[in-house]
Amino acid sequence: MFEARLTQGKILKQIIEAIKDLVQEANIDCTDDEISIQAMDSSHVSLVSVSLRNGGFDHFRCDRPISLGFNAANMGKILKCAGNEDVVTLKADDEGEALALVFESPNMDRIADFELKLMDIENEQLGIPDTEYKCTVQMPSSEFQRIIRDLQVLGESCTISCTKEGVKFSASGDVGTGNVLVRQNATAEKEEEKVMIEMDEPVELTFALRYLNFFTKATSLGPTVILSMSPDVPVVVEYPIGETGFIKYYLAPKIDEEEE
Amino acid sequence: MFEARLTQGKILKQIIEAIKDLVQEANIDCTDDEISIQAMDSSHVSLVSVSLRNGGFDHFRCDRPISLGFNAANMGKILKCAGNEDVVTLKADDEGEALALVFESPNMDRIADFELKLMDIENEQLGIPDTEYKCTVQMPSSEFQRIIRDLQVLGESCTISCTKEGVKFSASGDVGTGNVLVRQNATAEKEEEKVMIEMDEPVELTFALRYLNFFTKATSLGPTVILSMSPDVPVVVEYPIGETGFIKYYLAPKIDEEEE
Amino acid sequence: MFEARLTQGKILKQIIEAIKDLVQEANIDCTDDEISIQAMDSSHVSLVSVSLRNGGFDHFRCDRPISLGFNAANMGKILKCAGNEDVVTLKADDEGEALALVFESPNMDRIADFELKLMDIENEQLGIPDTEYKCTVQMPSSEFQRIIRDLQVLGESCTISCTKEGVKFSASGDVGTGNVLVRQNATAEKEEEKVMIEMDEPVELTFALRYLNFFTKATSLGPTVILSMSPDVPVVVEYPIGETGFIKYYLAPKIDEEEE
Repeated sequence: MFEARLTQGKILKQIIEAIKDLVQEANIDCTDDEISIQAMDSSHVSLVSVSLRNGGFDHFRCDRPISLGFNAANMGKILKCAGNEDVVTLKADDEGEALALVFESPNMDRIADFELKLMDIENEQLGIPDTEYKCTVQMPSSEFQRIIRDLQVLGESCTISCTKEGVKFSASGDVGTGNVLVRQNATAEKEEEKVMIEMDEPVELTFALRYLNFFTKATSLGPTVILSMSPDVPVVVEYPIGETGFIKYYLAPKIDEEEE
Repeated sequence: MFEARLTQGKILKQIIEAIKDLVQEANIDCTDDEISIQAMDSSHVSLVSVSLRNGGFDHFRCDRPISLGFNAANMGKILKCAGNEDVVTLKADDEGEALALVFESPNMDRIADFELKLMDIENEQLGIPDTEYKCTVQMPSSEFQRIIRDLQVLGESCTISCTKEGVKFSASGDVGTGNVLVRQNATAEKEEEKVMIEMDEPVELTFALRYLNFFTKATSLGPTVILSMSPDVPVVVEYPIGETGFIKYYLAPKIDEEEE
Repeated sequence: MFEARLTQGKILKQIIEAIKDLVQEANIDCTDDEISIQAMDSSHVSLVSVSLRNGGFDHFRCDRPISLGFNAANMGKILKCAGNEDVVTLKADDEGEALALVFESPNMDRIADFELKLMDIENEQLGIPDTEYKCTVQMPSSEFQRIIRDLQVLGESCTISCTKEGVKFSASGDVGTGNVLVRQNATAEKEEEKVMIEMDEPVELTFALRYLNFFTKATSLGPTVILSMSPDVPVVVEYPIGETGFIKYYLAPKIDEEEE
């Protein structure tokens, strides 16, 4: 049996919002350490990986590992019924065919319980190698979201180049060209406004804006995004979730920019 | 001649908003006591009944009873031109073919007068029997709106069951099932947050969510909704309008839940 | 070479928003005094004229007059990438084929530079005669916007009649008729709430609401709009831009109201 209670139930809403446009079906994998989701998008171009460790829950019990296969759109519909202040509890039997979701309003006047039908989904756990990256950029997630949204008016690809000076996002197309430079700013007053760059060598990679834009659906999960890049390997776009979780997106760079 | 002046002109806007998706054409029936509207929705499934008694107006004069047949969409278009703070005056001659609507801004800098063309509409005043109901639930109108909206993701029908403990709204469908329990809470600090249940015996009835959702367009008219239910008779969904009026919706229960 | 720097870069966004639904392509004409735009709408019914004098810029340099032909929709897309607090700099070479736009965030953490491809557009500078108008009405731009929006529910034309008492906007159609009277009010506390009428003789003219509605896209540029009217000549709908600029729309009255 699996049971997990999260006071900040909003986080589950936001996680599903952050993956449901990318992924149609996925498994929630529950162990006694954490719940995690790992899935490729429907065109097998990008990968999303979510982890919430048991320490982030008020109550967490998982007797033996289980995989709960769900349809992301349906899960999203049900989680939309949870208020932003609601406490959310997830429950599943070991052989159950449904995931129970209980939403309690803070003053307990209102209790909603839902059952989401589960499905069998082939589990294609991908071993993600633990890479050392040449460049790591931490920046405000809202700033990243805005840049990706802005550059979409110009073209389909975005080149991200990281130097000591800052990180530059570029796009071009019929309308013209655009470059947005975000300068290193490790001394900003607020932690979430800091722009911090760690780099061994400059990196420049080009990505499909369409996918980067999907990733920014996770912006509401936290004030910060971390981009990790090395030549010729997928970028990792990570949104930390509090102290005990994350959502990471992986996207391979475009090999030949001339293609599009 | 008929003339009625309402300082809170916004109420008329809200009433028309609350019926115009349900009813295409209707009569405003004016007597020296009140103005009222009674109409069935276009598929003759539900009934809406509005009453504003003369005491709610700043000025009210109705020399002899008249019926003003109007198109609800057109009336809505004109009332959208009234500001939320405007004083609204309605005027009609006994044999007139138009309803005059005058909107005055609070500081009188702006006066708008409109004429809405009237039409002859067959008057099918339905005698609504004054029933005693087995259960009456008073709850926050915004809470009721939210529950109806939420349950629509699950199915087309909603079962409302009322017990001493509280009132439970349930729906189910392909995605899964959902139950929202609202507990009796007669001691809430604010009058509009109270949930009060009066019952002689438990009642459980099933309704089309589509119509319940239409009714919640009246939510802006007040903080409270009152549901009155007895076995095998239409539910009454009532939104009180201040001290001197109401909008009531009647909807027959589904006989056989298996139908849908 | 041309270079102009505007601390309140938002003004450029708003100007392009105010013309892009009306005008597809136009020239920015730069001289050492000002930048200006003059263009007819695509159906050659109305004319828009923009002027920003050099005094309104923080830095302004124009070595010799040049015309920069641009696509308004594309310019709009790029200017949407400027934040509302950004400083905007425009740059063009004398023979250049692109307009450079640089957006700097107030704290300089973020610099975006865009290049918009330019095009050759036939320059049809229309000499606008400096007319004396029989009536001039200054009123809140938001009030004008609301009236035009409201009257569109009634018909396609709006009659504006100006008397000493006030200015009246009228429309009629299948739904009914409507008149909005805005009274002279030169003593309002706030400058932007004043309604001031200067007139030699009463004027009554009828215009296509569709175009008046296009003009109200300029509402965000300032709190005030000025309508100048004389019999049988185009109305001027002017939005002053701070102390040093304006956007003016010209629209010929309908000759025969029966036409529509």
